[in-house]
Amino acid sequence: MNKEALFTEIQKKRSFLCIGLDTDIRKIPDFIKEKSEDPIFDFNKAIIDATHHLCVAYKPNLAFYESMGAFGIKSFEKTVLYLQKNYPDLFIIADAKRGDIGNTGEQYAKSFFEHLKVDALTVSPYMGADSVIPSLKYPEKWTILLALTSNEGSEDFQMMQDASGEYLFERVLRLSKSWGTDEQIMYVVGATKADMLERIRAIVPDHFLLVPGVGSQNGSLEEVVQYGLNSQCGLLVNASRSIIYADNSESFAMHAAEEAEKLRRQMAELLFQYKLVEEL
Amino acid sequence: MNKEALFTEIQKKRSFLCIGLDTDIRKIPDFIKEKSEDPIFDFNKAIIDATHHLCVAYKPNLAFYESMGAFGIKSFEKTVLYLQKNYPDLFIIADAKRGDIGNTGEQYAKSFFEHLKVDALTVSPYMGADSVIPSLKYPEKWTILLALTSNEGSEDFQMMQDASGEYLFERVLRLSKSWGTDEQIMYVVGATKADMLERIRAIVPDHFLLVPGVGSQNGSLEEVVQYGLNSQCGLLVNASRSIIYADNSESFAMHAAEEAEKLRRQMAELLFQYKLVEEL
Repeated sequence: MNKEALFTEIQKKRSFLCIGLDTDIRKIPDFIKEKSEDPIFDFNKAIIDATHHLCVAYKPNLAFYESMGAFGIKSFEKTVLYLQKNYPDLFIIADAKRGDIGNTGEQYAKSFFEHLKVDALTVSPYMGADSVIPSLKYPEKWTILLALTSNEGSEDFQMMQDASGEYLFERVLRLSKSWGTDEQIMYVVGATKADMLERIRAIVPDHFLLVPGVGSQNGSLEEVVQYGLNSQCGLLVNASRSIIYADNSESFAMHAAEEAEKLRRQMAELLFQYKLVEEL
Repeated sequence: MNKEALFTEIQKKRSFLCIGLDTDIRKIPDFIKEKSEDPIFDFNKAIIDATHHLCVAYKPNLAFYESMGAFGIKSFEKTVLYLQKNYPDLFIIADAKRGDIGNTGEQYAKSFFEHLKVDALTVSPYMGADSVIPSLKYPEKWTILLALTSNEGSEDFQMMQDASGEYLFERVLRLSKSWGTDEQIMYVVGATKADMLERIRAIVPDHFLLVPGVGSQNGSLEEVVQYGLNSQCGLLVNASRSIIYADNSESFAMHAAEEAEKLRRQMAELLFQYKLVEEL
């Protein structure tokens, strides 16, 4: 999916919501675990069926699937296939935070873009250009680089400054934007760091940003939009736990949809307010 | 496995060689692909049977297995189980370069240390303390942090300097050594950066270093030992392609063993020269 198509979806749904499928076997309702042979996939399927019209993207975090071994990877693959078959307009982000060089980086890209056919892959920039470039070879596929994350530990290294005052995360933006175009690269920027969004937009005005931290981590959607929005929206705001674990009863999927709709409605109002959609 | 036990294995085998099982389906001999139902596992098994007495560790790089989907993960799991059953004294490193926070980081640690029972996991430090600490909770399990990698792109960010002259990789060493002990953390330091080993040993004199870049990448084993060796060896030197793809015929495993033995013999001489073993 290219940038134009993604923006069209955002306008159509009046939503730039990404739902994080951080599906934890310990947190899904007991009745699914009792009945299902693949509870992780069945949970995801129910969440997707209830929320697909409210979001433009899903982001399964690989850690949750890998922790179940080959069986978990199968659940992940089934989830991706289910999305592609039933909701082909949704953008699928494999949140894997990979990053490796040459040969190995190519294997990662192949794994996610050829084998699984997801739209985007999150990548850690620590190893530099040759760990990112292998994933930029696939047309209409996206590499989402960690820039400024929403966790406490982001202060440890991402906020390191050189003698000129440039932060490490700014250096990541500045160098990496020459490795590919804004049709190939997005950046992870935590909603808890909204005050940094002006500095970020000064370096990458046109790139899409994937913004976690709204929801359970209490980042402000208004501030993210105020400092981060661009003329093609340029934002995918992710919420995971606050949506998928909103409720633990047999009607968990309905409650997930209610939480997703609360965020979508706020997004619609902001898109209208900033004149990116013509009606509410 | 604790540090003392690892050093004992190194002395016993007069080797601090780690063999990288970067097993690429496109590179393994055709006769295996024709005959075997699980060529990746059968290739690994043959390499392990031929080399286990020459090395102290194996390092499968997850990218190569993940690129084959759930089937590849199964081959990875079978390789780990085969090692544990037949050669329980070998140290197993899951080279996954993960790194994620809280909940997700715990899932990664659980995946590798509880489900797969490997000894060590490589982790990218970009997200800071709270992405590393979840993997430090398992006794006698190791987190191997990327510090200064052997690739060209390591210049992009790892060599960034702050106003005091400290490099990012030095900051990674300095901060992270307070997150756990030298019985829990090792560091990746490329053999191609041997000139930086003195600076590294000034910060982490007692930690084990995992050193890729000898072999195909032409790092010097003598220099790595000269600047990196400590009183418990403190080095695991990794070679992958130069060993496992030494030959493509039916006798590939024998040729792999010959290449491994060349490195092991150099290592034995260096261990003797630096008085860490009493005889050659």
